[in-house]
Amino acid sequence: MGCHKKLLLSSKLAQVLRTKNVPISKSFSNSRFLHTSRANFTVELTSVRYPDLKRGGYATVTDRDISDFEKLLPENGRVLTDASELSGYNTDWLKTCRGNSQVVLRPKTTEEVSGIMKICNERKLAVVPQGGNTGLVGGSVPVFDEVVLSTQLMNNIISLDEVSGTLTCQAGCVLGAIEEYVSDYNLTIPIDLGAKGSCHIGGNLATNAGGLRLLRYGSLHGSVLGVEAVLANGDILDCLTSLRKDNTGYDLKQLFIGSEGTLGVITAASIICPQKPHAVSVAFLGCESFPNILQIFKQSKNMLGEILSAYEFIDFQSMSCAKENLNLSSPIGDFPFYVLIETSGSNGQHDEEKLNQFLEEMMSLGLVHDGTVATESIKIKNIWGLRERLAEGLLHDGYCYKYDVSLPLPHFYGLVEAMRERLGDSAKRVIGYGHVGDGNLHLNVTSKEYNQEIMDQIEPFVYDWVAERRGSVSAEHGLGFKKRDFIYHSKSKSAVHLMQMMKNSLDPNGILNPYKVLPSTLR
Amino acid sequence: MGCHKKLLLSSKLAQVLRTKNVPISKSFSNSRFLHTSRANFTVELTSVRYPDLKRGGYATVTDRDISDFEKLLPENGRVLTDASELSGYNTDWLKTCRGNSQVVLRPKTTEEVSGIMKICNERKLAVVPQGGNTGLVGGSVPVFDEVVLSTQLMNNIISLDEVSGTLTCQAGCVLGAIEEYVSDYNLTIPIDLGAKGSCHIGGNLATNAGGLRLLRYGSLHGSVLGVEAVLANGDILDCLTSLRKDNTGYDLKQLFIGSEGTLGVITAASIICPQKPHAVSVAFLGCESFPNILQIFKQSKNMLGEILSAYEFIDFQSMSCAKENLNLSSPIGDFPFYVLIETSGSNGQHDEEKLNQFLEEMMSLGLVHDGTVATESIKIKNIWGLRERLAEGLLHDGYCYKYDVSLPLPHFYGLVEAMRERLGDSAKRVIGYGHVGDGNLHLNVTSKEYNQEIMDQIEPFVYDWVAERRGSVSAEHGLGFKKRDFIYHSKSKSAVHLMQMMKNSLDPNGILNPYKVLPSTLR
Repeated sequence: MGCHKKLLLSSKLAQVLRTKNVPISKSFSNSRFLHTSRANFTVELTSVRYPDLKRGGYATVTDRDISDFEKLLPENGRVLTDASELSGYNTDWLKTCRGNSQVVLRPKTTEEVSGIMKICNERKLAVVPQGGNTGLVGGSVPVFDEVVLSTQLMNNIISLDEVSGTLTCQAGCVLGAIEEYVSDYNLTIPIDLGAKGSCHIGGNLATNAGGLRLLRYGSLHGSVLGVEAVLANGDILDCLTSLRKDNTGYDLKQLFIGSEGTLGVITAASIICPQKPHAVSVAFLGCESFPNILQIFKQSKNMLGEILSAYEFIDFQSMSCAKENLNLSSPIGDFPFYVLIETSGSNGQHDEEKLNQFLEEMMSLGLVHDGTVATESIKIKNIWGLRERLAEGLLHDGYCYKYDVSLPLPHFYGLVEAMRERLGDSAKRVIGYGHVGDGNLHLNVTSKEYNQEIMDQIEPFVYDWVAERRGSVSAEHGLGFKKRDFIYHSKSKSAVHLMQMMKNSLDPNGILNPYKVLPSTLR
Repeated sequence: MGCHKKLLLSSKLAQVLRTKNVPISKSFSNSRFLHTSRANFTVELTSVRYPDLKRGGYATVTDRDISDFEKLLPENGRVLTDASELSGYNTDWLKTCRGNSQVVLRPKTTEEVSGIMKICNERKLAVVPQGGNTGLVGGSVPVFDEVVLSTQLMNNIISLDEVSGTLTCQAGCVLGAIEEYVSDYNLTIPIDLGAKGSCHIGGNLATNAGGLRLLRYGSLHGSVLGVEAVLANGDILDCLTSLRKDNTGYDLKQLFIGSEGTLGVITAASIICPQKPHAVSVAFLGCESFPNILQIFKQSKNMLGEILSAYEFIDFQSMSCAKENLNLSSPIGDFPFYVLIETSGSNGQHDEEKLNQFLEEMMSLGLVHDGTVATESIKIKNIWGLRERLAEGLLHDGYCYKYDVSLPLPHFYGLVEAMRERLGDSAKRVIGYGHVGDGNLHLNVTSKEYNQEIMDQIEPFVYDWVAERRGSVSAEHGLGFKKRDFIYHSKSKSAVHLMQMMKNSLDPNGILNPYKVLPSTLR
């Protein structure tokens, strides 16, 4: 990290684009391919890696069950039982969990989902609902031999109201495909993720996915207007209103947002789509320290206000990973920290003026040492690619220990430093990046292969560190299978007790996504 | 309604302010006074007006209970039993409901609320939580003799994080006071109501209040980060995180937002406060038809985009009410419809340019026939006063039948026209105004005094009309006491069944705000 001279930012800076060496980030069709092809690696069975874990008292799938499922879903390719076809559904994207399900069901309608759940509830067969299978905590794959209920074939747009901006669609619509669809109507979707090429909107809701636009458009708890869900007993709960306001009784749809498929299977949703911005700009800036990043953030809220749509950071070690493993390069020199600021608004000229004024101020205050601004869509994609592809880049190291935490901003980067010091040379890499604007840090550690000693160094240290600072041990990834026993680090006993009570009421047989979210033992 | 020549809108229009005749809207301290003084009118007891309603099998408050309450809340003025002191707490703001509670409790801390609930749960005493008592559906006053638990003395700001914009405060903080507080830190509060001078933030959350800024900042389900609540059995549920993202288990706080005090007593909350806009403008426009209002709305989303912060409408009859009952006057001529558009942003010059360009376009398309723009805060208040004080103006007619519905935009004003035709001369006034941007219509009918024949003409006609068009029979006011039996017009049997299941789990004795939200008989 050399010493950098201040780059004099003029109002022309927006035109000085230096991103030509950065390859285009993969389109979502490519990333889908990537996802599918990765499933061929052999991953240790979850039941082997976690030998203390006991299978619940569920039934096992019989030939009679398969025959019942086939009656319900008669066409070819809707009841999968062939081992080669099952492998992708049994293995998570990170290659850290593998189940042993013997059957994958692919319904097309809510009524079919209801039929499946009725059979499974009656027979006490455990079920794991699965969308795009892009989750990072082992929540969307079987732990033992749960039936996989895939939403892959539930991918119809149901309606779009252009004036109010309300989209209603089935749960299996791919996020990126929805974005393309509403874009034709001058609208955008209030959520964006690196995984948008494969993830399903139903999975996004089930996991309360956060992503890259939360700073601007808020959480799904606010932007989802309606949900249709099938309960464990097969009952269809129709809360699929597309009204912006509806205060008639308890807001039941909220139950399903973020409950990771343990309370019901989301089959359709209505979402409010904001106006598509007429202009988008991305600034990529180099900074010398993390406190500077926080100062720039406060100033950006003040000077960019309503057009600020993302405030992300990447550390030097993240950039090294992108260089080494993905052959990407920084559009500016080497710095200890990089900030990615996105603006989006209805008037490009106004936005440019605001951004330039802001950048000049940041340079003159000495908070930013170098920077580049992109306004053309391909160059914006390149810069975002650096940030979005980090998760993919990390996998090239071998095994990735992923942590997704919320922390009060003064402690935000301290966790990365503490972990780096703690692990010393034993880890291949310790990197930090994430959504500063949302207080959400992605801490990642890699090693050549899974190593229990490293794991024991990391956990529970990381969770204790976060809990001591009143953070959250899972900001946006959820608890899934891998983090459920750390729930008490962020939630009180009485809260977990209430969650369990809700689970027992809604799914008395416990067949919906077992071994997930709720802890293995209640305190 | 005369014929109006087009006013040529130039870029100077923003400076042509014609609002000098509109009196300043009452500051929130005045409206608090108004609220308190109104309680002296004699209102028919709810138990008399609804003779079929039976009191639940709750205990009645004994001297021993009073003595226990006094031990818990020792200072003067914390346990009120004097009839003159009770009257305001027993009567709703609209003078349409009156209970007969014999005791009002005024705790200062969460622990005191917990102590109260423990006593009441053990003794099977029914409890009505009460904030600013500004609700419009009889939800915050006793129906019979429920104990009133007032949050008036729970009005401390707990913390404010300036960088992230997170405010944490007790439930009894008055909304307007919170707004003033955060304003000093360059922040604003994401909710704004006509009742902000009296309503408590706890009540806002409990009723999922919508209000004037929902279009810009979204619903409370998105902007509330944490809630602390006391359950029916006195248990304190601490979900008072101030993190923007926290996906560790079910999002329990959502249960309490909009459940109108029937699942728990909200004692504190964390809310994300957006950056305070540097500039605010309000345009008040005259239009010839309601379809024009919808066209202008679509254009405003496109041309004003991220700075659009309110899109309200008032009909001619609403303006007449404001003139006759409040002595207010229109800043422009007479029109069948008026639109109020607010913009707020970080750069006044940019906002003005956008607004002028938009208004010129609307004039040239013939959608707007006259208009005025205000940028100074006092003049903005005057224009908003016209809209915000309508609820107050209506009360001067005598009795007000209030309906707050969501409707798909193509049907939005049809309900007002249908009701006007149906009621003919029997009503004094039938007016429509509200939040077009949120699909939320306020339909109001007045008569000299309560008249059962008029009521029978209105209900269930109004609810059937809304249900047939898949609207909501309560957009933002909630169901409370008065609308609970219309829940099936907007919610399915299975949804209501699930709500009742949650109520039974959380409050098995049914002591929390009985006779509210859930219907008197389950289908």
